[in-house]
Amino acid sequence: MVKLIDDERLDYLLAEDLRIIQSPSVFSFSLDAVLLSKFSYVPIRSGNILDLCSGNGVVPLLLSSRSEAKITGIEIQERLFSMACRSVEYNDLSEQIQMICHDINDLSDSLPQSHFDVVTCNPPYFKTPGGDEINKNKHLAIARHEIFCTLEDVIRVSARFVRPGGKVALVHRPGRLLEIVDLMKKYKLEPKRLQFVYPKKDREANTLLIEGIRDGKPDLKILPPTYVYNSKNEYTEEMKRILYGE
Amino acid sequence: MVKLIDDERLDYLLAEDLRIIQSPSVFSFSLDAVLLSKFSYVPIRSGNILDLCSGNGVVPLLLSSRSEAKITGIEIQERLFSMACRSVEYNDLSEQIQMICHDINDLSDSLPQSHFDVVTCNPPYFKTPGGDEINKNKHLAIARHEIFCTLEDVIRVSARFVRPGGKVALVHRPGRLLEIVDLMKKYKLEPKRLQFVYPKKDREANTLLIEGIRDGKPDLKILPPTYVYNSKNEYTEEMKRILYGE
Repeated sequence: MVKLIDDERLDYLLAEDLRIIQSPSVFSFSLDAVLLSKFSYVPIRSGNILDLCSGNGVVPLLLSSRSEAKITGIEIQERLFSMACRSVEYNDLSEQIQMICHDINDLSDSLPQSHFDVVTCNPPYFKTPGGDEINKNKHLAIARHEIFCTLEDVIRVSARFVRPGGKVALVHRPGRLLEIVDLMKKYKLEPKRLQFVYPKKDREANTLLIEGIRDGKPDLKILPPTYVYNSKNEYTEEMKRILYGE
Repeated sequence: MVKLIDDERLDYLLAEDLRIIQSPSVFSFSLDAVLLSKFSYVPIRSGNILDLCSGNGVVPLLLSSRSEAKITGIEIQERLFSMACRSVEYNDLSEQIQMICHDINDLSDSLPQSHFDVVTCNPPYFKTPGGDEINKNKHLAIARHEIFCTLEDVIRVSARFVRPGGKVALVHRPGRLLEIVDLMKKYKLEPKRLQFVYPKKDREANTLLIEGIRDGKPDLKILPPTYVYNSKNEYTEEMKRILYGE
């Protein structure tokens, strides 16, 4: 049994294999989290993975289906942390996934540095504007805007906790590609794999996936593109495989 | 009539519309030059275009089919310059295309600075290795390796001759993307449009096309990808349109 609060729902994740607590007014996972979980390298049998800005724990939950590594998820919002913890428990994954409710900028005493094989993050995408542009819903605003952590925070913290030779994988918007690669270089995360996601054929990319290796040598590969929808506005076969394992 | 030297051939360019002098032992244009000519913005009725590292003049010739702007092509090798001049003459384009045989690093007295609406370049792709890796054919080595001009030379010179607000378009290898965007930023060419070319589906990109605007504001778009071959190893419909106007 699982305790659901307010408008929370227990949704399916990856067809029948996993369940996840979501709420339209607090947090629902996006396609981007699913794409990141698929894109990211993971050690299969053992190792340690850190997920920053975990939200309702969607990335740790998805990675647990690909890897037996220990997964640590960090989320600053108590309500989202609570949703993640209850989902972890519901899926009987408490041995593998540990959630921590913390500001990623203040983790030094909580986690060992230079320790993790992989760090993943689906961060807030938007700079914090002045004025009214921010979502009035506090939960959604924090997830979408750089209120508690900036892009530089995410990359600096990732670089601090990943081991030398370990990998950092991010999902973000293409408009921030140049900032991302500048910051990765600044913190010695060498960009190695870059993939663009296009909503459909003949449209500009609206999502990027990037992986850097700590202290790696320059050698960037541009992976084959991913398309989300076909010309009938249905998921492409590739997306169906990613989403439902079909 | 056209004078052909040694193993030179008078090949078709863009189906029947243009002819170009090529030679297997000196220089033959690549698909990359065709992709650059298609990718690059051009003013239609008037204006000034500069093409650096012009080789046998393939980019100026192709751009002349899209624009009535005056086109200046720079080529350091006398033999390639001669091929370009003869092709320009054969196609009766001497009014529109001017070829100059010069080192791009020493153009200050030959051309007005901050003058051109567009600068294009299909530069040598490979750093100059020590030892035997360079092609023993001098003409091919100069076209492929950074013997007379480096990537930084190309971008610095482009930035010097393009007008404020004008565009610089390059074709290059994806492995050098991060260097290219760093150098464009250094010389105040803001990357605005980026497109990757994939040899076929499910393969990594092997070519990139990038356009920067002098003194532009950050706002990078990732254009839809281009595929060269289909699953039968024939040109895709898109490539046929680019190559033959079909």
